[in-house]
Amino acid sequence: MSTDTPDIDASARERLIDLAAEFYDQFAAGEVPEMRLPTRTKSNIEYDEDSNVWVYGDRESTRSANSVRGARKLLKAIYTIDFLAEQLDEDRSSTLRELYYLSESWGEKEAQFSDQDESNQLIEDLEIVSHVTREDFHMRPEESGAKLMGPLRIREQTNRGDREIHCQDDVGQGGYQIPNNPDTIEFLDHDTDFVLCVETGGMRDRLVENGFDEDFSTLVVHLGGQPARATRRIIKRLHDELDLPVVVFTDGDPWSYRIYGSVAYGSIKSAHLSEYLATPEARFIGIQPADIVEYDLPTDPLSDSDINALESELTDPRFQTDYWREQIELQLDIGKKAEQQSLAARGLDFVTDTYLPERLTAMGVL
Amino acid sequence: MSTDTPDIDASARERLIDLAAEFYDQFAAGEVPEMRLPTRTKSNIEYDEDSNVWVYGDRESTRSANSVRGARKLLKAIYTIDFLAEQLDEDRSSTLRELYYLSESWGEKEAQFSDQDESNQLIEDLEIVSHVTREDFHMRPEESGAKLMGPLRIREQTNRGDREIHCQDDVGQGGYQIPNNPDTIEFLDHDTDFVLCVETGGMRDRLVENGFDEDFSTLVVHLGGQPARATRRIIKRLHDELDLPVVVFTDGDPWSYRIYGSVAYGSIKSAHLSEYLATPEARFIGIQPADIVEYDLPTDPLSDSDINALESELTDPRFQTDYWREQIELQLDIGKKAEQQSLAARGLDFVTDTYLPERLTAMGVL
Repeated sequence: MSTDTPDIDASARERLIDLAAEFYDQFAAGEVPEMRLPTRTKSNIEYDEDSNVWVYGDRESTRSANSVRGARKLLKAIYTIDFLAEQLDEDRSSTLRELYYLSESWGEKEAQFSDQDESNQLIEDLEIVSHVTREDFHMRPEESGAKLMGPLRIREQTNRGDREIHCQDDVGQGGYQIPNNPDTIEFLDHDTDFVLCVETGGMRDRLVENGFDEDFSTLVVHLGGQPARATRRIIKRLHDELDLPVVVFTDGDPWSYRIYGSVAYGSIKSAHLSEYLATPEARFIGIQPADIVEYDLPTDPLSDSDINALESELTDPRFQTDYWREQIELQLDIGKKAEQQSLAARGLDFVTDTYLPERLTAMGVL
Repeated sequence: MSTDTPDIDASARERLIDLAAEFYDQFAAGEVPEMRLPTRTKSNIEYDEDSNVWVYGDRESTRSANSVRGARKLLKAIYTIDFLAEQLDEDRSSTLRELYYLSESWGEKEAQFSDQDESNQLIEDLEIVSHVTREDFHMRPEESGAKLMGPLRIREQTNRGDREIHCQDDVGQGGYQIPNNPDTIEFLDHDTDFVLCVETGGMRDRLVENGFDEDFSTLVVHLGGQPARATRRIIKRLHDELDLPVVVFTDGDPWSYRIYGSVAYGSIKSAHLSEYLATPEARFIGIQPADIVEYDLPTDPLSDSDINALESELTDPRFQTDYWREQIELQLDIGKKAEQQSLAARGLDFVTDTYLPERLTAMGVL
């Protein structure tokens, strides 16, 4: 349950060293060193119907030192492994961008990255072959994670010692800012019945001002558009470790359904991280196309790109359920979309007094 | 020094009611009601050389009820004033987007906004004529403000009571998330020598990991690209109320110089708020074009749009100093730009051990 960082660090370091040792063994056995990776083309990424997340298929490709290009790639991998092992040893961290620039300080010119895509890709390769996430290599993302507000007490390991923080009593109106690596957080105790993920800052602030987190024992997570890795990770941990239902509240348009999709099912790009980031049990609360009709919300007409996005969702494996087919077809039929804040047309308290309680009851969460 | 919210609320409310009372008096005197506003075209916005911020010129335009269109505008203003006065009375708040949707619930159809531009514009008009900022009307922005990390203890008035928070000891690695209206914050005590505003999240995290805020008694403010109103407001208050020097640390390209410009001089769009948001004493620390040369940083070539932006800055009144002319001409000459994280090419500690101390000493801040 709790994250024991020194152990995680040691095991991440060991797996990296193992990778390097494999090259060594290959050399010693007189073989040309190579590294095997699942092929990362779209055709080798499948939606797993059982686990409801994206996974790699069986096809593999090989990075081999039998060409200059391949040998250079393995050299860069060795230098990067060396850097990461040292970083873990010293309990430090860095960003993907820093790694790219840092390679300029490596004595061996052939090991330097020619652009940031190359170093980003290598870190993803290392994540895949080592089964260690980049957070456990201490590679920090550039983007900040979510803000939390609700009846939860956590302990965060910072590089200045531990901090115990209650996500209502010890924070300002802005809430608790989760760190880039949320696995430094330990959940101490809570009085939370469910997790409510909210797309927009305006709606997040409305719920907090109206005291929704207090009245309904809810942990409000601000997604801020397409959620950062740290946000998706903490949502998953809240679900798995505290056994809390997760509901996602977004605008009622195809782009927002994809925000829900990335919380619930992960993305093609991070197929190797689905187990770490995706929460397939997360449920969509709204704005549903049915809500637009039922609550007579102010709307905008669907644009051509909205219509295309909805049509592509009709064939997206993530949205192959009766529920989504019905909702998407209804939306194409009425030709309208609505924002979450459009609920204000019924008054500022409508969302917390009426809409959310009705939807949560219908979903069996309340 | 401290913000006494009930007083501010009462005075904001009073000014709004005064506006409505003016219409009433005009009616009573048999005049056609009208509202006078500074003309908000570019030609009526001037850069004030004394105060170093943008201000309106002398030209005025009039919104008069002598046309149906004008009368409708005043009707919408009255309805909005009524809503804002009630909101202040009840100590509630709302977003610009909520106001737009909320107008659908007004009984009088003619008073409803036809799009959000119209309601946004009206709130700006009311800010200008009442000399009250939209934060003091309790209109919350959608965008979140900055994160603070450093030796500062604050008290924040939240709608659940006051919170005392030390921006190092009581927060996680993510820092203190300032609320949308930073005037609810009171500065209690501090051990801060200067304020360091940082453009990117990656660099902000680097400074925090390296303990720069502890070692140099610095308050690190994360700008996150073009800074939000709340961020610019708190920087100004830290400068004015605590008498702290403010330095701005960004990438070395023309777009980042504009980030510095918006902290220091405000923007044309918010000329009426310069006094509230701009910190003309803020100074630019780098990445300077001179640093690219001196520290031999990894660079990218200037694109055509970079070159155009630099050339337009050469005629921008905000950059009419010897310093900026020299730097911009140097940059056009070398044809290169550099990111702040490119300092990592000299090692992860170079920025905190060498670059920042050298620059701060050269600027007389250390």
